[in-house]
Amino acid sequence: MSQLLQEAVGELQKLPGIGRRTALRLAMHLLRMEEASVDDMTAAIARFRHDIKHCTRCNNLSDTEVCPICSDRERDHSTICVVEQVADVLSIENTHQYRGLYHVLGGVISPMQGIAPSDLKIDLLCDRIAEGGVKEVILAISTSVEGETTLFYLMSRLRRFEGLKVTTIARGIGFGDELEYVDELTITHALRNRRAVE
Amino acid sequence: MSQLLQEAVGELQKLPGIGRRTALRLAMHLLRMEEASVDDMTAAIARFRHDIKHCTRCNNLSDTEVCPICSDRERDHSTICVVEQVADVLSIENTHQYRGLYHVLGGVISPMQGIAPSDLKIDLLCDRIAEGGVKEVILAISTSVEGETTLFYLMSRLRRFEGLKVTTIARGIGFGDELEYVDELTITHALRNRRAVE
Repeated sequence: MSQLLQEAVGELQKLPGIGRRTALRLAMHLLRMEEASVDDMTAAIARFRHDIKHCTRCNNLSDTEVCPICSDRERDHSTICVVEQVADVLSIENTHQYRGLYHVLGGVISPMQGIAPSDLKIDLLCDRIAEGGVKEVILAISTSVEGETTLFYLMSRLRRFEGLKVTTIARGIGFGDELEYVDELTITHALRNRRAVE
Repeated sequence: MSQLLQEAVGELQKLPGIGRRTALRLAMHLLRMEEASVDDMTAAIARFRHDIKHCTRCNNLSDTEVCPICSDRERDHSTICVVEQVADVLSIENTHQYRGLYHVLGGVISPMQGIAPSDLKIDLLCDRIAEGGVKEVILAISTSVEGETTLFYLMSRLRRFEGLKVTTIARGIGFGDELEYVDELTITHALRNRRAVE
């Protein structure tokens, strides 16, 4: 096997979910692409890895010290939505419904994976709230066991801020979900948090 | 969204089977990798794209003008195994059972996808055989409609070489396949080509 091909396949296999077969298929695709197009790709990856920063306020990925969301005077600086990861910010931003700020924890507490509260940006969150001006913290954490642990830990840490409203996003049946296939815990939550029809 | 992230995600999405969500996940993984490790990856991809050659004899990917298989005096130069693509060479080499040479067509005849016989390395194959010394050509082409078309076309082209043995790899039930789930055509072939128990 060609050394060049072997090296490329070996490197592509370092990516998650990409086995030998997929890596080979990607390599073959790279050959069909224009050389300039492949150069654009490798350059974009290198630039991203070298130059990306974490916003010093919300820990979201940013090209600058403070991200555009935290710097935006038009947004509601009295509300912080706490999420696990960068992708969650994108999901919420895509709804165009939320005008507050974010705080990216960088994961959830997981003793199994050796992730302790100190590995997450929880102190940074508390510092932001301690500065004053924050009225509500929305905890948009996933409903996994680790997520719930993180949720309880966060609530215990946030309790000391008097007058701070702490909320979690609603649990319920997602749009398009068929009741038949929804798990019992979700149905229990959805029933308990039922709303009067307006 | 960060411009750097957006560019990296956009470039990764150019790869087949990688949507926006997967591209984002790959980007996050790149961030967790060492910078040097990401540099190794982009360098390997760039080197592969720029420096890889096609063997001038068998059309397999090669670091040199003539690939190591074609240059290997120890191998049987009287047998050529014709395959669709580079990955097929690797699959056969992995069996360590074949000691002949290869010929990579670079695809199969597909009017639907606009791939004509002239787009494949068929003339190059005929040139190799015309040089003399080739006793057998094994056609290891897939059993798809396009594969069968290619097979028939190749057989018509190879007929003019007197004394040349042209064979196809055996069709039958694969190891581990359950008869219940095997298609009728394969079972028909397997029955027709049944062998006496030794």
